[in-house]
Amino acid sequence: MSGRVEPTSRKAAGGSIGLTVAYDGRSFAGFARQPGLRTVQGALEDALRTALRREVETTGAGRTDAGVHALGQVVSFEAAGPDLPEGTLVRSLNALSGDGIVVRGLRHARPGFSARFDAISREYRYRLAVGDIAPLFLAPFAWRVRGHLDGDAMRAAALHLIGEHDFRSFCVAESADGHRTFRRVETVEVLEEEQLGEECTVVRVVGNAFLHSMVRTIVGTLVEVGAGRRDPVWVADALAACDRSAAGPTAPAHGLTLWSVEYPDEVWL
Amino acid sequence: MSGRVEPTSRKAAGGSIGLTVAYDGRSFAGFARQPGLRTVQGALEDALRTALRREVETTGAGRTDAGVHALGQVVSFEAAGPDLPEGTLVRSLNALSGDGIVVRGLRHARPGFSARFDAISREYRYRLAVGDIAPLFLAPFAWRVRGHLDGDAMRAAALHLIGEHDFRSFCVAESADGHRTFRRVETVEVLEEEQLGEECTVVRVVGNAFLHSMVRTIVGTLVEVGAGRRDPVWVADALAACDRSAAGPTAPAHGLTLWSVEYPDEVWL
Repeated sequence: MSGRVEPTSRKAAGGSIGLTVAYDGRSFAGFARQPGLRTVQGALEDALRTALRREVETTGAGRTDAGVHALGQVVSFEAAGPDLPEGTLVRSLNALSGDGIVVRGLRHARPGFSARFDAISREYRYRLAVGDIAPLFLAPFAWRVRGHLDGDAMRAAALHLIGEHDFRSFCVAESADGHRTFRRVETVEVLEEEQLGEECTVVRVVGNAFLHSMVRTIVGTLVEVGAGRRDPVWVADALAACDRSAAGPTAPAHGLTLWSVEYPDEVWL
Repeated sequence: MSGRVEPTSRKAAGGSIGLTVAYDGRSFAGFARQPGLRTVQGALEDALRTALRREVETTGAGRTDAGVHALGQVVSFEAAGPDLPEGTLVRSLNALSGDGIVVRGLRHARPGFSARFDAISREYRYRLAVGDIAPLFLAPFAWRVRGHLDGDAMRAAALHLIGEHDFRSFCVAESADGHRTFRRVETVEVLEEEQLGEECTVVRVVGNAFLHSMVRTIVGTLVEVGAGRRDPVWVADALAACDRSAAGPTAPAHGLTLWSVEYPDEVWL
């Protein structure tokens, strides 16, 4: 008998796993596990339990609300002993987790890795279908806004949001109580795109972390400006007010996609 | 009483209407009206009957099969007397024709205009989701092909299809009997795109007209080459054989979209 046991591969005990997961918000009552509802976390944990034959507790980079989509959500869990080879695990999870969700990739991380707390940057994209022609293929993935939006006014308004600010005006009021509401927003871009042959306006938001409904409130506020109901500088006033009622409405969930999450290189094995 | 009656607007008697229509192939049993089935033509004619309070017979530029999508299908019908103003008609049709279909535009054409017989060019696009990662948002709009496709080989193969040829090998065999099967293909492109954040390979085909299942057979044949099961020159042999069994399989309907249809400028009023 040898004196010590060497791990036979990276998948052996002691590390963590980060799954990259896409899902269609229509199929789930949000990310976070809830008794009696089909949620992303519930579907993944159920699939992991079946595939790995043990209880697995997962952590998501962003707790997306019901109806919000994800292209690059990251979900972490602790690896254990002789888990399945990664290709087999990804195929099993895709077979077991049901419709509306795809595990796109798997990476090995150092022990204790948390998809939530180790994230250094998150990107969300919000699609708007603007104009008189109703969206068809984009209807499940874009908020329809009739009339016209002034992209330059929206871009001018967005500049006020860049940087580290107290975003209390831009989150669900009850979620702010007693919590630190400063966040750093790096990018708010307003882009014109064609997706599936249909025109859309995309608001791309990148930041270190986001409060509850923060991206949707940013979008609802920028749409007030784009539609001409408010001036761009009103967004600065809304931010300074530190009061949810000072900002615009919350844009609907189905226009929003959690696009990607970034981590420091050193978390990956 | 005046001696003659002048038409009061372009929408008065004597002209035709061309609707530009998008639809999701999942919602219909194909384009052509069929008793007891929900079809695109049936939904539009029912909506037109209700909106215009008369029977309306329509003609589509392409009789797409069940499951095939359209972004720019064109549907024509004869205008009559004091029909509704065009904005009202488009809104009514969109309200009446149900889910999965959007009337994107309306143009006035000269009397006797036929969306089918006046068309000079049709463009179809076929999406392929290639590789080990399953498509999610693109799943209803792309054929999943595992492994790898050699785009250069597909492009070399596609060159054999450009020009005026007898495409008998590339259509449903029964549909060719006793019919002229020469068609002119102007463009077959193989492109890499990102749609809704997911990678896809797009086969873009433009031609004057297409036989039944011709685009899907072209795609099924090019995939045989891309996957390495056939050499590009095999496509020339398949074309020359004038025999359906010489070409590749018919690609599934849900990857295909009727993208746009072109007409000579002089058909429009």
